[in-house]
Amino acid sequence: MSHPLDLKQGRVEMAHGGGGRAMAQLIRELFLPFMESPALRAGNDGALLARPEGRLVVATDSHVITPLFFPGGDIGSLAVHGTLNDVAMMGARPIALSAGFILEEGLPLADLARIAQSMGEAARAAGVPIVTGDTKVVERGKGDGLYINTTGIGVVADGVELGGERARPGDHLLLSGTLGDHGIAILAQRENLAFASDIRSDSAALHGLVATMLDAAPGLRCLRDPTRGGLAAALNEIAGQSGVGALIREAAIRLRPPVRAVCELLGLDPLNIANEGKLLAISPPGESARLLAAMRAHPLGHDAALIGECIADPHHFVQMETRFGGRRTVDWLASEPLPRIC
Amino acid sequence: MSHPLDLKQGRVEMAHGGGGRAMAQLIRELFLPFMESPALRAGNDGALLARPEGRLVVATDSHVITPLFFPGGDIGSLAVHGTLNDVAMMGARPIALSAGFILEEGLPLADLARIAQSMGEAARAAGVPIVTGDTKVVERGKGDGLYINTTGIGVVADGVELGGERARPGDHLLLSGTLGDHGIAILAQRENLAFASDIRSDSAALHGLVATMLDAAPGLRCLRDPTRGGLAAALNEIAGQSGVGALIREAAIRLRPPVRAVCELLGLDPLNIANEGKLLAISPPGESARLLAAMRAHPLGHDAALIGECIADPHHFVQMETRFGGRRTVDWLASEPLPRIC
Repeated sequence: MSHPLDLKQGRVEMAHGGGGRAMAQLIRELFLPFMESPALRAGNDGALLARPEGRLVVATDSHVITPLFFPGGDIGSLAVHGTLNDVAMMGARPIALSAGFILEEGLPLADLARIAQSMGEAARAAGVPIVTGDTKVVERGKGDGLYINTTGIGVVADGVELGGERARPGDHLLLSGTLGDHGIAILAQRENLAFASDIRSDSAALHGLVATMLDAAPGLRCLRDPTRGGLAAALNEIAGQSGVGALIREAAIRLRPPVRAVCELLGLDPLNIANEGKLLAISPPGESARLLAAMRAHPLGHDAALIGECIADPHHFVQMETRFGGRRTVDWLASEPLPRIC
Repeated sequence: MSHPLDLKQGRVEMAHGGGGRAMAQLIRELFLPFMESPALRAGNDGALLARPEGRLVVATDSHVITPLFFPGGDIGSLAVHGTLNDVAMMGARPIALSAGFILEEGLPLADLARIAQSMGEAARAAGVPIVTGDTKVVERGKGDGLYINTTGIGVVADGVELGGERARPGDHLLLSGTLGDHGIAILAQRENLAFASDIRSDSAALHGLVATMLDAAPGLRCLRDPTRGGLAAALNEIAGQSGVGALIREAAIRLRPPVRAVCELLGLDPLNIANEGKLLAISPPGESARLLAAMRAHPLGHDAALIGECIADPHHFVQMETRFGGRRTVDWLASEPLPRIC
């Protein structure tokens, strides 16, 4: 019988990814206690799930965020929320998550345990089990602590038809809350911005909000979470997919004051900053009032606002009416201004 | 309009993971042409699939193999086969794959294109579309070229009930072919063993073979692909799950002569070496003859053999009758003798 893992002083070793006793021990003593689910405990090559009552959605996301721990979350909770949100943006109810870990040799087991605990808690809070997993280890210097892939499966109810190609001129654009909290929280942590230390990531699972929205607005066209690339990328993607333009109003977009302060200080455009607990909804105009009311009644949508409309535009441009009455084009950047944000 | 990607001289840049124009271009010009599928081209946050006619299986695998290219395959084809096989070992027909890339800054785009092409070809050959993906980039020195997570979804027909916990004393153990080809091919490549340069990985998708086997032996108890940890780990896992022992016969286990030569030269036990195109099947004794005939009639099972039986053993030991008539315990190692084998 081997000694139990030393979760205080121990570190990840190459053997923990080797498919032998050491890996079995890591799974049994570190992952399973935090991420318990019947399918995971069965210990087979994959997880068996009941026959789903509807069309399926599959979404995948690898998480390489640095630092691993940040105000409002960590790579574990982010990996759960990020993928659940991609599933939810398709109008699906998430039913299962997989978790694939790439660990760097030398990672403190205490950090890994904290992350596994956070993942397990986020999954339980979301009501979605982690059903299967995989663990690999790479040599010191070939990783950066750990990377986590999560893949999510969801079920779409009959009648729900969402997609980036469904927006029409005249449709209303609704944003579920403030912009920039995730990206600026990470930036503040990386740059040690003391005055911004109370900015927290908005990382959250949005499928409950989405369920409420689908009830309120059955004609909903499209949902998208403005993560990497921010709202600017999300709007430009949809404009391209649907062949429409978009016009948004700067005055309708809410920022928390410290987020606004950091953006102004560093010359960052909040439209390009990543969010992890917000969504953009595109609704037929006749349903938007009811939809907005439903969003505002949900804890994750109480700052929701109508921020603009889709318009006819053969160039599929996204434009913004600024606070000063002018108009400017909202382009997406060549890249996110903050690498490794999720 | 930006210039097209330089697929000959170009390299992965941080911007390719940034969620902006550069990432959109990488997806459009490099991934989509090789991994085309309607769901992937739709460009939404996830893929929408038809309602499945049966229970679901989900399996996930992150691939960190080094070197990226090896005789008989590369990380791309391996990432497809490895996950399809995990789905197939649950008795499922795979219906979709996701692909999550973690790219290291500086990776030649020519290598990435070759790998994407190989993934696309492997998926098409297997008849399973890659339906959704994700691309992240980490800084130079924080990765090792690239890592690929694939997650597979499959559908299990009614009546199929497989699992590592279903083996019973008296059940027959069948192995679909030779052992050690994948692990020894990688080892030979890493160590520049010239005399072993014609050893090729057995990397292959096994779901077609599995479908044949399920037809032939409806009472099949369990399937497992002996990857990391080899046959020894697979047998010990199942022995533990089912609470049985196992007795195998060395003389019944086939090795290709050059694989045997490398194992003898380097003192490696072929039972611990990883395979990527073989499976272990556990069958009630009354169905094993028919099952073996069906396996041998399939191109990926023509070297299949009955290699032993499950036995009653309160200690759940795996034992082997050696070629010399003795018995030895087949333990799993603390770790795989070859790190980063898959």
